[in-house]
Amino acid sequence: MHFANIVGGLAGTLTTVAFFPQAIKAWKTRSTKDVSLGMFGLFAAGVFLWIIYGIGIQSVPVIVANTITFVLAVTILVLKIKHK
Amino acid sequence: MHFANIVGGLAGTLTTVAFFPQAIKAWKTRSTKDVSLGMFGLFAAGVFLWIIYGIGIQSVPVIVANTITFVLAVTILVLKIKHK
Repeated sequence: MHFANIVGGLAGTLTTVAFFPQAIKAWKTRSTKDVSLGMFGLFAAGVFLWIIYGIGIQSVPVIVANTITFVLAVTILVLKIKHK
Repeated sequence: MHFANIVGGLAGTLTTVAFFPQAIKAWKTRSTKDVSLGMFGLFAAGVFLWIIYGIGIQSVPVIVANTITFVLAVTILVLKIKHK
């Protein structure tokens, strides 16, 4: 179980951190033509539910990781809507 | 706990299904200029670790959801490398 927790923590860190390069790219280039509106809309909605789930099971790592991901996914979504 | 499971299931479905519109868009347009290589590289690596984690905790939903996401993230990654 100890090994699983380390792998799970690393997995969660990677899938959260992954959104930084996309948010930075969209912010810098102001170009989001190839970025899918559907993807980031559905993903932001899903991550919002992960936060609710984290509150429900009282898991601080789930709440923290998904709150960071939510902010980044919404940033990309807003840049997509603004710059097409 | 029942409510949390429903919310968690819905959250996992949304964050998995979200990758379909991006994969379809990249496949159809053959244009991935605005898509971040770093994002899908890091995300695919993270999702791969989620699969290992799922095997470690013997959770079929974690394994299944992340295997689907992994295939889609790698598809987007390959299209990004091929079409820039």
